Amino acid sequence: MDHRKNIEVCFTPGEYEYFKDEYEIVVVIDVLRATSAICAAFHNGIKSIIPVATIEEAREYKAKGYLVGAERKGQIVEGFDFGNSPYSYMNEALRGKEVVLTTTNGTKALDVAKDADTVVVGSLNNLDALCEWLAEQDKNILCLCSGWQDKFNLEDTICAGAISEYLIGTGKFTSSEDSSIAAKYLYLSAWDRYMGFLKASSHRRRLKNLNLNEDIKYCLTPNLTNVIPILRDGKLVKL
Amino acid sequence: MDHRKNIEVCFTPGEYEYFKDEYEIVVVIDVLRATSAICAAFHNGIKSIIPVATIEEAREYKAKGYLVGAERKGQIVEGFDFGNSPYSYMNEALRGKEVVLTTTNGTKALDVAKDADTVVVGSLNNLDALCEWLAEQDKNILCLCSGWQDKFNLEDTICAGAISEYLIGTGKFTSSEDSSIAAKYLYLSAWDRYMGFLKASSHRRRLKNLNLNEDIKYCLTPNLTNVIPILRDGKLVKL
Repeated sequence: MDHRKNIEVCFTPGEYEYFKDEYEIVVVIDVLRATSAICAAFHNGIKSIIPVATIEEAREYKAKGYLVGAERKGQIVEGFDFGNSPYSYMNEALRGKEVVLTTTNGTKALDVAKDADTVVVGSLNNLDALCEWLAEQDKNILCLCSGWQDKFNLEDTICAGAISEYLIGTGKFTSSEDSSIAAKYLYLSAWDRYMGFLKASSHRRRLKNLNLNEDIKYCLTPNLTNVIPILRDGKLVKL
Repeated sequence: MDHRKNIEVCFTPGEYEYFKDEYEIVVVIDVLRATSAICAAFHNGIKSIIPVATIEEAREYKAKGYLVGAERKGQIVEGFDFGNSPYSYMNEALRGKEVVLTTTNGTKALDVAKDADTVVVGSLNNLDALCEWLAEQDKNILCLCSGWQDKFNLEDTICAGAISEYLIGTGKFTSSEDSSIAAKYLYLSAWDRYMGFLKASSHRRRLKNLNLNEDIKYCLTPNLTNVIPILRDGKLVKL
């Protein structure tokens, strides 16, 4: 009998319904840029982040006096304090504070996964620390990619493939879904070419704000931090 | 200005809504086994196939005296004449006949795509003939993978990647979606390993009927036929 736990990959929030309830841990991934920014926030001393799925909820928090970040289609939404650039969170004024965040893809994925036993935030920035922690948990794990406007994206998938490959390499995990097999292949075969392409491109997905190239380089750099953000009672906090 | 047409890949019927209306031609792919069986049917002289999405519709046709195939989860549904094994259609009694077909994944994909200008059926079995025809059309093309129970599957994706690679190689097409880039990578990097694995496996997805190994070998064999099934007025016919 196989006592290994499962590590599987779901490509988009829309497909989560076909996976849920079988995994004790869900790793939400939005490499460009929400989960990278969330890791940067905790690395830089932010106390907690309340992820919300809609601009309306974000406005309600803003009206109550919260610091609120809101991003849609790569831009900071008018009237909000910041978007999802990791650099926004490297700000002394935010240390020790609670902030609210809504983004195009990442907070949507956090929202669909919120009823799982354990929801943690993954990115390339906290890859090794996250993998080491996951390997110790003895739980079934699902990597939930945020995608881009409900479609598959490569950077989240490659990140999920890297996590899968690490966990399977420990001998304690296995995967059987085709999406997981594909994510591993893409991690193993496409990493160098794709990451090079991404780093060189500032036109990706109409994200044309000035800092995008810097943001992309930051988000695609593995292991900048050891923080593992975890969802507790509707708030992200540092594990 | 880039005059090339788009060739893109959609991984599941559920994601089709994020792609539709931008593509004049949709290629529906369900390698294991619906679209392979449909190609086999036309190769063997069947006149037309009425694809239906539900068992209920199939029963209504059956009650009217039609020859009806119905498959769910790899098995022939009780009370129907055949399922989606290509070998079912190599039957003299079906030559020149009109049949009705419902399957777990493939006819669902045909159903979601039915309002596109042109819907054709793709498989590995008609790969070259289909690619050559598509290359002459000067239209935007979407490969719609049927997936497996609404999830991504590798064999449809690899088939879509093969079509994309061919069309891009003509210089007349380009692709920009991450799913299309991934499909090409998977076709180029995973074909040998994955097809070998698939051909050797009879336990895939609980499809345990006796002929499955033969079915898989058949479905994974490129270029057994030149037929291109096309949807016209709700019926599949030979182009």
